[in-house]
Amino acid sequence: MNYDLIVIGSGPGGYVAAIRASQLGLKTAIIEKESLGGICLNWGCIPTKALLKSAQVFEYINHAADYGINVDVKGEPDFEAVIKRSRGVAEGMSKGVQFLMKKNKIDVIMGFGKLKGKGAVEVKAADGTMSEHTAKSIILATGGRSRELPNLPQDGKKVIGYRQAMVLPKMPKSMLVVGSGAIGIEFAYFYNAMGCNVTVVEYLDNIVPLEDEEVSKQLGRILKKQGINIMTGSTVESVDSSGDLCKISVKTAKGIETLEAEIVLSAVGIATNLEGLGLEEAGVKFDKGRVLVDDFYKTNVEGIYAIGDIVKGQALAHVASAEGIICVEKIAGQHVEPLNYNNIPGCTYCSPEVASVGYTEKAAKEAGYEVKIGRFPFSASGKASAAGAKDGFVKVIFDAKYGEFLGAHMIGYNVTEMIAEVVTARKLEATGHEIIKSVHPHPTMSEAVMEAAADAYGEVIHL
Amino acid sequence: MNYDLIVIGSGPGGYVAAIRASQLGLKTAIIEKESLGGICLNWGCIPTKALLKSAQVFEYINHAADYGINVDVKGEPDFEAVIKRSRGVAEGMSKGVQFLMKKNKIDVIMGFGKLKGKGAVEVKAADGTMSEHTAKSIILATGGRSRELPNLPQDGKKVIGYRQAMVLPKMPKSMLVVGSGAIGIEFAYFYNAMGCNVTVVEYLDNIVPLEDEEVSKQLGRILKKQGINIMTGSTVESVDSSGDLCKISVKTAKGIETLEAEIVLSAVGIATNLEGLGLEEAGVKFDKGRVLVDDFYKTNVEGIYAIGDIVKGQALAHVASAEGIICVEKIAGQHVEPLNYNNIPGCTYCSPEVASVGYTEKAAKEAGYEVKIGRFPFSASGKASAAGAKDGFVKVIFDAKYGEFLGAHMIGYNVTEMIAEVVTARKLEATGHEIIKSVHPHPTMSEAVMEAAADAYGEVIHL
Repeated sequence: MNYDLIVIGSGPGGYVAAIRASQLGLKTAIIEKESLGGICLNWGCIPTKALLKSAQVFEYINHAADYGINVDVKGEPDFEAVIKRSRGVAEGMSKGVQFLMKKNKIDVIMGFGKLKGKGAVEVKAADGTMSEHTAKSIILATGGRSRELPNLPQDGKKVIGYRQAMVLPKMPKSMLVVGSGAIGIEFAYFYNAMGCNVTVVEYLDNIVPLEDEEVSKQLGRILKKQGINIMTGSTVESVDSSGDLCKISVKTAKGIETLEAEIVLSAVGIATNLEGLGLEEAGVKFDKGRVLVDDFYKTNVEGIYAIGDIVKGQALAHVASAEGIICVEKIAGQHVEPLNYNNIPGCTYCSPEVASVGYTEKAAKEAGYEVKIGRFPFSASGKASAAGAKDGFVKVIFDAKYGEFLGAHMIGYNVTEMIAEVVTARKLEATGHEIIKSVHPHPTMSEAVMEAAADAYGEVIHL
Repeated sequence: MNYDLIVIGSGPGGYVAAIRASQLGLKTAIIEKESLGGICLNWGCIPTKALLKSAQVFEYINHAADYGINVDVKGEPDFEAVIKRSRGVAEGMSKGVQFLMKKNKIDVIMGFGKLKGKGAVEVKAADGTMSEHTAKSIILATGGRSRELPNLPQDGKKVIGYRQAMVLPKMPKSMLVVGSGAIGIEFAYFYNAMGCNVTVVEYLDNIVPLEDEEVSKQLGRILKKQGINIMTGSTVESVDSSGDLCKISVKTAKGIETLEAEIVLSAVGIATNLEGLGLEEAGVKFDKGRVLVDDFYKTNVEGIYAIGDIVKGQALAHVASAEGIICVEKIAGQHVEPLNYNNIPGCTYCSPEVASVGYTEKAAKEAGYEVKIGRFPFSASGKASAAGAKDGFVKVIFDAKYGEFLGAHMIGYNVTEMIAEVVTARKLEATGHEIIKSVHPHPTMSEAVMEAAADAYGEVIHL
């Protein structure tokens, strides 16, 4: 055996697993077909946050007078410079992973990895060179890609996925975004803020449909006010991209509408990268595009593990990282607890931001809980007033019987930094009163978590 | 008896106590000599945060090109508009307290309250009218004001305190700030960002001297880079304000230096408002400007309580509110636990922000703990890179023996919203591994808390 562990795929699941393995004394290699850091660092979480920050700064400039800064602003945002900055941030992070691999003495093998049985992995490099490596354990962490719908094939130019949306050669004048999950909404927000005419088409009745309904509805109202055209309960039937503008046929409750847009962005979820991995040959079981694993990410085949987007659970970077660490700690013989998939936060980084963890109100009721609900609007928060960020609220859900903290749902400025408190509190099995009696600093928006908990128990002060 | 409870002073201690009392069924009145909401809402926390937000927006405009927004920005901040916005935010919040008093059926009595014995309080209104009111319980919550040093008397024009600093009639060209606690540093940051030439004079060896030394030093370096002149280990000997510019004699390690500044801001802490309250007549014991109280804020005199800046503990708004709630819940006969003054967060809202809770490294060692320390710099955070906010770090301190989470110290963008997680975690007696295993959302700056904890235990991923 060359290695104790080979990881296939260097996204936030794979590279984190490799580092943890190295810390635990495992001789580790990682195989990557494209760029270290995977989609998250190169084409996902990180570069999009850079784009969104540029949009936020542009919005501050446009609203400077609201803050008493009466400057004379001329010109347009430099779209190329915004894209360039985003690419620079991504490249910096990818180089960071390279550094981490070196520091942790992890061998990086560039190429496409394929299971060959008996602990062997065959790697085909970009130039066609083949090599074979063996390991006691192999972790599959090959991630996902933009899912293509049959009636919405992507040509990468006019009908695109998230990758192309990050590096468009010029600012489009109009864009139709299909799907309103985190990816769709972040791009819709970004392009609208930069001056593009944006329409969002969502199949379900609310945008960000995984969120609590109150959050979804509030975000819908706010984005509409920002100028985004939102069509819920609608589906794209077909796209004709033969002309200068795409002609999009959208089926709504009222019938078929035909819209025009320079760019159509398909953001209807991800497809897993399982093709060519040699799963069938190795006898690794999978179902509906997901590799079947136990609580510690072991497949049915001894010595083969899988983590991240290609297994059960939310297809999120932090889930992949957590799974990678648990998987490796178990391989190394540590005592490990399974991941609680009900305590995974989800974030959408438009402005205002959306963050949530645990049960929505609907899910809690469907699960049979009798709920105690508290809400605190940022319009009643001193810090939010001072920051000019009064939109949004915190909603918390407790079990009425035993006081379990079932879930929290937030919309507002900076809430993506506030949700960690709830994750940690739920990890520690906090009750509402433990939150209420934790002295939150004044003035912060985080006080809204304490106040919302107090509201659930009839003790809210500032409402 | 007119009332179950009279509260003297309507700051964040008093008005919060009054609301909680009303919730618990107590017939409550509140006495205020000036503006509902006290210093915090009218002359402290809230209006300063509004000023700081304007400064932040101005900085975004000045650095717009860093975010790819190459617009042509001309002009200066409109100082009057900035001040006006801040006053508007404060007035809005004060009206909010007025609404809360009404909603909670709390009688507001405007005037200066004085203890008259046997549950009586005499109130002198602004027009000289006297009235008397009685209650079973009286809470003193009269707060503090800017402390005057003998060699630094304030004239309110050229040598000023925080109140005047919030409403200067025009932007000064130069300012000398005496004292580098939260108030001094926030104004130093604000005026420097707005284009004023700022010098900070601090008696101790480091600015923000209550913070962990690493944070103090890092903040010092960053503020110097922003253009603030920082003189530590120095004292103001005298100020001659007779000319156009104040001439300030500063004693440094190298001898006496004479500086000139248009405005001298004295920010050397607060003095408590105990004068004229009738403490001596009522027999209420106090020492060194603080009313002596038990764990539930009862003074030595039956039926008289005191909370907030005028008692032991940190002179902070959130401390006053927490004390007010505990005091009232105890009066109402609820089971209450004393406040843990070691789990009170402190925040300074300059950019980058500073936030901390619990033991500093030095204090932990002095208390006899063997410590495990973890650090995570924002330069290694993907979100910080994307946000263009790589300055700063999170430092966490654990007890090596039992794993107790002793303290956390943060400097960076948005850390004032991140500290609540640590407060709650410490409230729930979290260990390092419970923090490490709480899945923080990616990409956020809050991941730095998890990574710093992991660093303390040799498990950090991104370093």
